[in-house]
Amino acid sequence: MVTPEVTRRVTEAADSLGYRPNTIALSLKTNRTMTIGVVIPDLTNPVFPPMIRGIEDALGGAGYTAILANSDNDPGRERVILETMRTRRVDGLILATARREDSLVAEAATDDIPLVLINRTTENGALSSVANDDAGGIMLAVEHLAGLGHRRIAHVAGPQGLSTGKRRYEGFLAAMKACGLEADSALIATANGFSIQEGACAMTEILARDANVTAVVAANDLLALGCYDALAQAGLRCPEDVSVTGFNDMPFSDKFNPPLTTVHIPLNEMGERAAEVLLRHLTDPDAPPETILLRRELVVRGSTGPART
Amino acid sequence: MVTPEVTRRVTEAADSLGYRPNTIALSLKTNRTMTIGVVIPDLTNPVFPPMIRGIEDALGGAGYTAILANSDNDPGRERVILETMRTRRVDGLILATARREDSLVAEAATDDIPLVLINRTTENGALSSVANDDAGGIMLAVEHLAGLGHRRIAHVAGPQGLSTGKRRYEGFLAAMKACGLEADSALIATANGFSIQEGACAMTEILARDANVTAVVAANDLLALGCYDALAQAGLRCPEDVSVTGFNDMPFSDKFNPPLTTVHIPLNEMGERAAEVLLRHLTDPDAPPETILLRRELVVRGSTGPART
Repeated sequence: MVTPEVTRRVTEAADSLGYRPNTIALSLKTNRTMTIGVVIPDLTNPVFPPMIRGIEDALGGAGYTAILANSDNDPGRERVILETMRTRRVDGLILATARREDSLVAEAATDDIPLVLINRTTENGALSSVANDDAGGIMLAVEHLAGLGHRRIAHVAGPQGLSTGKRRYEGFLAAMKACGLEADSALIATANGFSIQEGACAMTEILARDANVTAVVAANDLLALGCYDALAQAGLRCPEDVSVTGFNDMPFSDKFNPPLTTVHIPLNEMGERAAEVLLRHLTDPDAPPETILLRRELVVRGSTGPART
Repeated sequence: MVTPEVTRRVTEAADSLGYRPNTIALSLKTNRTMTIGVVIPDLTNPVFPPMIRGIEDALGGAGYTAILANSDNDPGRERVILETMRTRRVDGLILATARREDSLVAEAATDDIPLVLINRTTENGALSSVANDDAGGIMLAVEHLAGLGHRRIAHVAGPQGLSTGKRRYEGFLAAMKACGLEADSALIATANGFSIQEGACAMTEILARDANVTAVVAANDLLALGCYDALAQAGLRCPEDVSVTGFNDMPFSDKFNPPLTTVHIPLNEMGERAAEVLLRHLTDPDAPPETILLRRELVVRGSTGPART
């Protein structure tokens, strides 16, 4: 209906006037915003920035911009963020915030906005997710400690409402059994959050219950740093008195005192894979959900040594 | 024009149908989105998450949601992010990405979107900003080292295109002079970015030029960690052979080996103050620009000790 000549004149006039398209109005028409919402539970946990970088790199290649938000593990804040992102019409969502039973995720999944879970998953397997082999990673840590002669091995578990906390705990029980060791309930304490402070509390609790512990498998690196603090507080040396393992190999793990033995996860790749899965869903809304588990390996550093006799 | 009865019936009908307001359409009318764009240059630098938390806490209290983006110190990416945020009609912007000469910031400032710079500032003083007393902080570090008997003090400077890099460098020169010491240009190396790797390169360069250095003032904590690596590589101990100071007191500074002596900045407060200034500009578009410099103090830990003789 519009001649090339008219198009040219309109374009020229727009350029000379410094016109910038109103993408809000535009997106009412096209229904595309080229933005992807990424929701993180705790930005102060160094595992997330490398994941975000992986997400951004993969999205950028496809012309999408990531818009991030930090929920601070607060469901109220998370609801506001999700509401904001959905009503601002992000084209897709990547959520690192999932709880095992998560009504917010369930609600978001009923929308027509494609959704991928990263790091944590829900019990509802109908959603695409990219996560760690949590149980397999813990198995590596327990085998390593058993090989060093440890028998009284403790576990500082993560929150059991999160898949990462639950699966690593179950993995710990299975690994102890596989190594012919007893998982003594006195040597297991559950943290209320993945933080240094929570790790210190849990480890202090374990030390008060049983002074014969010679090693502890922490459910992530921040909890492991808390174990360092609790051991120092109790006058115990790491690894001479008690060995400590973490999970994630977060940035700076090699710089701590002692450098942390931990389960390495390809954090950057985790982000890239999640973005790729999301891009597939954006291209093909009928694509079936995908569940990706990443490879893991143990990085042995200075925080583990032979069991004291 | 609308009777209370009609309002009631419409509201009930909307509720029963699960109606959710289309905030895109709504914001065309109200011109408010209740979202604030926050742009960070490098999320993997642990100084930023606490700032973001401070921003979020202050904004949340006023009903605003922060939408974050990570520019990865890439001006191209930053342009796309700013374009996205402005066209998505954020109500305000907090930028941690400013360069001293920054055409993107200048451009954004001509828009009618209120803008606050955090941590870094531009040479153009007409914008509101919340930053550190960079020179004052470096003065504390140099005085501390001079008091420990150090004379051959090196400086690993940050990028000179950033206010933080430039002001800390100038602060180093001024502090050395104030302490009656010579700032030898052979003992100054400039990093191309605020990263561990860049810090290691710069420190290696300094050690190659002069083996008599006994202390180094790094322009931030990541550069200081790079100095640790370079010293270890050269077979030198910290602090017995060479003392190291950082800047920011970023999370984990107390956990490194050795724990880092560094200039403490109230990162959380920096975020809160920036959000408060922005909220004032949102309430009163005619409010004059504010420049806030935060207090600083030196936290002395294990990375500094008496000069070797």
